[in-house]
Amino acid sequence: MRAAVARRGVLVVEDVADPVPGPGDALVAVKACGICGSDLHALHHADEFVAITREIGAPLSFDPARDFIMGHEFTAEVLELGPQTEGSPVSPGDLVTSLPIALTPTGMEPVGAYSNVYNGAYAEQMRLTAAMCMKIPNGLDHRRAALTEPMAVGRHAVARAAITPAEAAVVLGAGPVGLAVVAELRRLGVETVVVSDFSPRRRAVALAMGASVAVDPAVDDPMDAWLTADGRRTPVVFDAIGVPGTLEAVIKAAPPMGRVCIVGSCMQPDSVRPLLAQAKQLTIVFSFAYDPFEFGDTLRAIAEGEIDVTPMITGTCGVDGVPAAFDALGNPEEHVKILVEPGGPAVPAAI
Amino acid sequence: MRAAVARRGVLVVEDVADPVPGPGDALVAVKACGICGSDLHALHHADEFVAITREIGAPLSFDPARDFIMGHEFTAEVLELGPQTEGSPVSPGDLVTSLPIALTPTGMEPVGAYSNVYNGAYAEQMRLTAAMCMKIPNGLDHRRAALTEPMAVGRHAVARAAITPAEAAVVLGAGPVGLAVVAELRRLGVETVVVSDFSPRRRAVALAMGASVAVDPAVDDPMDAWLTADGRRTPVVFDAIGVPGTLEAVIKAAPPMGRVCIVGSCMQPDSVRPLLAQAKQLTIVFSFAYDPFEFGDTLRAIAEGEIDVTPMITGTCGVDGVPAAFDALGNPEEHVKILVEPGGPAVPAAI
Repeated sequence: MRAAVARRGVLVVEDVADPVPGPGDALVAVKACGICGSDLHALHHADEFVAITREIGAPLSFDPARDFIMGHEFTAEVLELGPQTEGSPVSPGDLVTSLPIALTPTGMEPVGAYSNVYNGAYAEQMRLTAAMCMKIPNGLDHRRAALTEPMAVGRHAVARAAITPAEAAVVLGAGPVGLAVVAELRRLGVETVVVSDFSPRRRAVALAMGASVAVDPAVDDPMDAWLTADGRRTPVVFDAIGVPGTLEAVIKAAPPMGRVCIVGSCMQPDSVRPLLAQAKQLTIVFSFAYDPFEFGDTLRAIAEGEIDVTPMITGTCGVDGVPAAFDALGNPEEHVKILVEPGGPAVPAAI
Repeated sequence: MRAAVARRGVLVVEDVADPVPGPGDALVAVKACGICGSDLHALHHADEFVAITREIGAPLSFDPARDFIMGHEFTAEVLELGPQTEGSPVSPGDLVTSLPIALTPTGMEPVGAYSNVYNGAYAEQMRLTAAMCMKIPNGLDHRRAALTEPMAVGRHAVARAAITPAEAAVVLGAGPVGLAVVAELRRLGVETVVVSDFSPRRRAVALAMGASVAVDPAVDDPMDAWLTADGRRTPVVFDAIGVPGTLEAVIKAAPPMGRVCIVGSCMQPDSVRPLLAQAKQLTIVFSFAYDPFEFGDTLRAIAEGEIDVTPMITGTCGVDGVPAAFDALGNPEEHVKILVEPGGPAVPAAI
């Protein structure tokens, strides 16, 4: 089958062996898999990520010199169940998703990145742990269901920030993570959500996802925009950018005694002024991924229409189109979320 | 009278005019005033501090080019009350302390640093706002009462960290701020308090203040010491050092999902790895100063014996000894807290 493989920092599409379901596995046909900013991190910064997970003692045994099939935001159709899958929550024909984690005889393994299991969703087929599969409920289509994973990232960040409807929010960055934060804030009833992004296209999507105001930081200070739009409810500031300089930017933006939530991943060292954060007595909350409950309930929220991810889905391509899609995502005017759909166009097409 | 004056980064002891109490003032004779690490910041980093307070919109109008009398951790005896002090909580002869803040016709002014009011406690006499004076209760002596201010800094940090007796603590740095954190942690019933400091003297004082273990970080990792001493209750990590590198050090030390409290003031920009804090999903709480309730209740706690500050008080000197005392504090083996007592020795002497 065709698969998009990360090989020492380069993305290669090639023919690979069809997966064979082992004990506990479901063999699935991938229906859609979103391309994630963290794929670029996994491609270009695997060494840093692996070094840091080892430093904190996380059980990640990945060798960055190994090839891996990318893709971890997926929906798929169950083709068959392997041995030892009695009592599995899914059956052949079911449309499913799953946390991007496989249970293997040696422990948990990420799927689609940093994995010693040669398995990911930028491929025609993949193996999932049957016991971890969740059926897509309520007739939700495979495209919107594929947004469960990134939307769960936003949900977790908002939960970590412990924001309430008595507060407001300022979200720096309207990439998929920032948009997921916006959607979750609105779902929770936070009324004033100011978004800041240099891209007109992404600002428009932020408004479609429920942002109250979307400003161009080259022109308008997002905190001034909060003052105009609300000025009363204290804003929690989210960093959904994650490049060097954004940590200092959110510290600078946050109000005295305020909370800051870092959800964008900055892969490089960064410089800050601790005294500024101290003079304001800030609380800085770092958020990463989500827990299984948040993932499952995010799927439910999308399926029940509490969150509409439609404005984020901007393009589609087949497995052979993945490298071109990575390139296209470099231009924020062109796309927000491209779904890889096996059998789709060889170059990314708008949806 | 004699006073120790900060003049563009240099400490000068000279004769200055005796203070005259204005409306609302109490004229007081200083009994003791602790020398604080932030005095060195105020002396050498006034420009940075003023720039940052202006950046956050704090009402500090101080001009760093001006002279100011230093000293803000004081006890004093009321000599007389100025006009418009009817209903004042204090009378001549009372031993008092106060937040180091004066109420002036143009607003609040810090006392002893960053102040446009030429008034501080490294002097024979000073002016306090009578309405803000607190009587020293319970027969507490003037030396221990002078520790109210720094102990309130520790109390506030522990409150900001929201630690409970179900948790443990690791405190990096056993200067006065770290020792104040230790004392408050023990007062709250936190059983395992690991302290880390390069100085044998300060480690000994930390143990006297109630630390469970005090390690030399050149020899022992404080987190290993926590594992040995407890290993069960999750530690909250306090940065009571505040120099470049300590922010990264506490991020590195903190356990996954842990809380970090920054109470040491780092006056320079610092470099961190945000990805490390994010992979651990840390919460970083910055703490600064205290509120008036915390200050008053810290005085009560010292007076009632809930906190014994005696081990921290290591030296005394007169006003003319302040420059030598600043020098002596550069050697952590020599002193922890030197109290300036007008009429005391011209060079710091051990207590």
